[in-house]
Amino acid sequence: MPHSTYQLLEIVGTSPISSDDAIRNGIEKAHLTHLSVDWFQVIETRGQIRDGKITQFQVIMKVGMRLDSPQSAPVSTL
Amino acid sequence: MPHSTYQLLEIVGTSPISSDDAIRNGIEKAHLTHLSVDWFQVIETRGQIRDGKITQFQVIMKVGMRLDSPQSAPVSTL
Amino acid sequence: MPHSTYQLLEIVGTSPISSDDAIRNGIEKAHLTHLSVDWFQVIETRGQIRDGKITQFQVIMKVGMRLDSPQSAPVSTL
Amino acid sequence: MPHSTYQLLEIVGTSPISSDDAIRNGIEKAHLTHLSVDWFQVIETRGQIRDGKITQFQVIMKVGMRLDSPQSAPVSTL
Amino acid sequence: MPHSTYQLLEIVGTSPISSDDAIRNGIEKAHLTHLSVDWFQVIETRGQIRDGKITQFQVIMKVGMRLDSPQSAPVSTL
Amino acid sequence: MPHSTYQLLEIVGTSPISSDDAIRNGIEKAHLTHLSVDWFQVIETRGQIRDGKITQFQVIMKVGMRLDSPQSAPVSTL
Amino acid sequence: MPHSTYQLLEIVGTSPISSDDAIRNGIEKAHLTHLSVDWFQVIETRGQIRDGKITQFQVIMKVGMRLDSPQSAPVSTL
Amino acid sequence: MPHSTYQLLEIVGTSPISSDDAIRNGIEKAHLTHLSVDWFQVIETRGQIRDGKITQFQVIMKVGMRLDSPQSAPVSTL
Amino acid sequence: MPHSTYQLLEIVGTSPISSDDAIRNGIEKAHLTHLSVDWFQVIETRGQIRDGKITQFQVIMKVGMRLDSPQSAPVSTL
Amino acid sequence: MPHSTYQLLEIVGTSPISSDDAIRNGIEKAHLTHLSVDWFQVIETRGQIRDGKITQFQVIMKVGMRLDSPQSAPVSTL
Amino acid sequence: MPHSTYQLLEIVGTSPISSDDAIRNGIEKAHLTHLSVDWFQVIETRGQIRDGKITQFQVIMKVGMRLDSPQSAPVSTL
Amino acid sequence: MPHSTYQLLEIVGTSPISSDDAIRNGIEKAHLTHLSVDWFQVIETRGQIRDGKITQFQVIMKVGMRLDSPQSAPVSTL
Repeated sequence: MPHSTYQLLEIVGTSPISSDDAIRNGIEKAHLTHLSVDWFQVIETRGQIRDGKITQFQVIMKVGMRLDSPQSAPVSTL
Repeated sequence: MPHSTYQLLEIVGTSPISSDDAIRNGIEKAHLTHLSVDWFQVIETRGQIRDGKITQFQVIMKVGMRLDSPQSAPVSTL
Repeated sequence: MPHSTYQLLEIVGTSPISSDDAIRNGIEKAHLTHLSVDWFQVIETRGQIRDGKITQFQVIMKVGMRLDSPQSAPVSTL
Repeated sequence: MPHSTYQLLEIVGTSPISSDDAIRNGIEKAHLTHLSVDWFQVIETRGQIRDGKITQFQVIMKVGMRLDSPQSAPVSTL
Repeated sequence: MPHSTYQLLEIVGTSPISSDDAIRNGIEKAHLTHLSVDWFQVIETRGQIRDGKITQFQVIMKVGMRLDSPQSAPVSTL
Repeated sequence: MPHSTYQLLEIVGTSPISSDDAIRNGIEKAHLTHLSVDWFQVIETRGQIRDGKITQFQVIMKVGMRLDSPQSAPVSTL
Repeated sequence: MPHSTYQLLEIVGTSPISSDDAIRNGIEKAHLTHLSVDWFQVIETRGQIRDGKITQFQVIMKVGMRLDSPQSAPVSTL
Repeated sequence: MPHSTYQLLEIVGTSPISSDDAIRNGIEKAHLTHLSVDWFQVIETRGQIRDGKITQFQVIMKVGMRLDSPQSAPVSTL
Repeated sequence: MPHSTYQLLEIVGTSPISSDDAIRNGIEKAHLTHLSVDWFQVIETRGQIRDGKITQFQVIMKVGMRLDSPQSAPVSTL
Repeated sequence: MPHSTYQLLEIVGTSPISSDDAIRNGIEKAHLTHLSVDWFQVIETRGQIRDGKITQFQVIMKVGMRLDSPQSAPVSTL
Repeated sequence: MPHSTYQLLEIVGTSPISSDDAIRNGIEKAHLTHLSVDWFQVIETRGQIRDGKITQFQVIMKVGMRLDSPQSAPVSTL
Repeated sequence: MPHSTYQLLEIVGTSPISSDDAIRNGIEKAHLTHLSVDWFQVIETRGQIRDGKITQFQVIMKVGMRLDSPQSAPVSTL
């Protein structure tokens, strides 16, 4: 079937350093199991604070990936 | 890698009793396969009606879970 | 447990022909691995253009499916 | 005509007891005049407070109903 | 039944003079048929222009009204 | 009163064929009782699926109509 | 000045029991310092989960209160 | 610290006259306790109706103010 | 080509007098260069405050205009 | 400068035939003056009705285009 | 009372350096008066420009804090 | 005419380095043709990924600029 289908997964990347680093950490984690991760969209940026300092940036994002062929598609129900 | 990554799954819990019970039923179902379910956020509350009575509460929610380690993560594309 | 739980997956169907055809292509792909796909909701319609012509309709949608029984639910974390 | 059409009405159910009870009260009221009320969607939950106690839960919701046949449909403009 | 139910109708009031006047015109029209109109909420303000002048303010709003008693409620499906 | 007032009704048109056909079916139904239907706005497109095929497109939309004169306006509370 | 002004505060009430109870707990807390709390609006319902059970409902809401007179209004900047 | 911080407060101004007057009344009230009120943003316009006439315009808005120096900032938790 | 195309421009009109006047000022400015301005939609109403008085109403709006013929359309990329 | 910049224009395409055709007509019109139109996103679908028939589909969409080089970019302020 | 209540304050942090730095500056300011600041959520990122350079990043965010005990809660109405 | 009017343009800045850098690149590009660019607002942050690394940050934003005088404003329809 020549018409690609894509799936969007919603993940939360975290980092103590910066919001961009939180994005990178989340994407690396997704890449470890999904080699075909193609793009991301930031949904929300949050974070935790202790003693007036940010201890963790949390970036909620969607990552998109191509679903290449029917036989490569594993089951993903809950 | 010390920086946790989380995933959000969107599910619909149902119950004939109450909206809170629909949340609980959905979470229990998610817990059966994801022991690491940590939090939920309600997206929408709906329901079905017959003869003027609510026969089913339907709560659309996101459930968040920690992705512990790279090797424990199974593939979940479509 | 008699109270059904459903899961929503976010996918992007594509087609060079029409937006409805993009919906159909995405659903067929989801059906190949999830026989229990029950409904869809369109989230956004986009597309690519070359030389003033639409080369690809892209429909982002959520597809809902029933999670039948605890033992049939495979693990789907990232 | 075999293709059903539905109408959504926006109502506010109220209750001094709980938010679910406010939903039920609103639906019962709608049912008294529309026997074909099929489903509801919660839009917003509000309430009134006196002396630190909730005196009224107010649930704004949409209720959906099937419009069965052309001849049964009365005029409903403002 | 002591628990009031309310209905929200969506209307568009218009005026060549001002946006507040468009609200007033829409409410007066609703009042002519619904004596129990209690409140309004503005949804959107639009308008038409000719030769660089506003010829009509259009205010989309919801108007809320109390549904007093079961027997007074006429049928309003489409 | 020279300043027109309009009302918006929210309906769901359905069709087994296409999303545009679902819009048309809903509008035709509305026209049967409201000859003054002037415009529509799509709110959401959904549908039902069986065996990987779309069995019903469902288009939630608002239809707008002019309320011509005070005496022609019937009562439409719940 | 006869025209009342109101302020909206955003709070998060919590409860291990139910979402309605979380609303009540938050409102009681607000009432302890603001005797004039008049209404609430739910913004979002979330919660924490441990071992598949909800350990805490968290309801983000706005509470509204009347600001009675100029001289009674304390300073509340950050 | 040379980098200014601002706070947004959400208030509801009211007026029997017009929506702009409701904005002005709310801002004057805020100014009585916060001399540093710098800007406003309208969130929603509502109102109450009696006998087909608007008795009160209610404008929900956010007002922004500069927080000048650490020592001038009083405590404002609930 | 008989099927009209329209363009929406987002502008901010300002006025020291009222929000409606800010709309009018923005539209007049748009009209000076676009004689075909047909309609507007208010996106947001804001304003600046000094000493508790509104010094400027700022209305963010979209203005729509017909694009009459291919040859009359100048290039407008950034 | 190797980092591309893109601009989004908001247009309304129209058609008496279908919503997809309205998209195509709007894009063709944009293409006549912007050869670099690369993608579109549908914002809203509306339409006009006469005698119960859709006389015009109106699709509000954003079209994106690459801004190739500084010297090719004409001025486009209002 | 064992059930914690939290309050959300909306602030705007600023910085000439970066958006993350604007977040940090706003949080430090909030911490000076609220030692119990626990988390933040970014609402919007804006900024000012002069001569093509960003002179100030402005991050609108909500900061959440625990309200520990009834007696510690100062009055914070407008 | 003393009342300034502003225009908002929607652009997408890109960068391989960071989201802030993508903002800067987009603003610089806008500045090359619009010397009067005054502020920006981030609409969405996206990006492309290859082999688990972000190859391009894409920041969709609106940039605002003052429209100084009628005679300086060139035509910008599509």
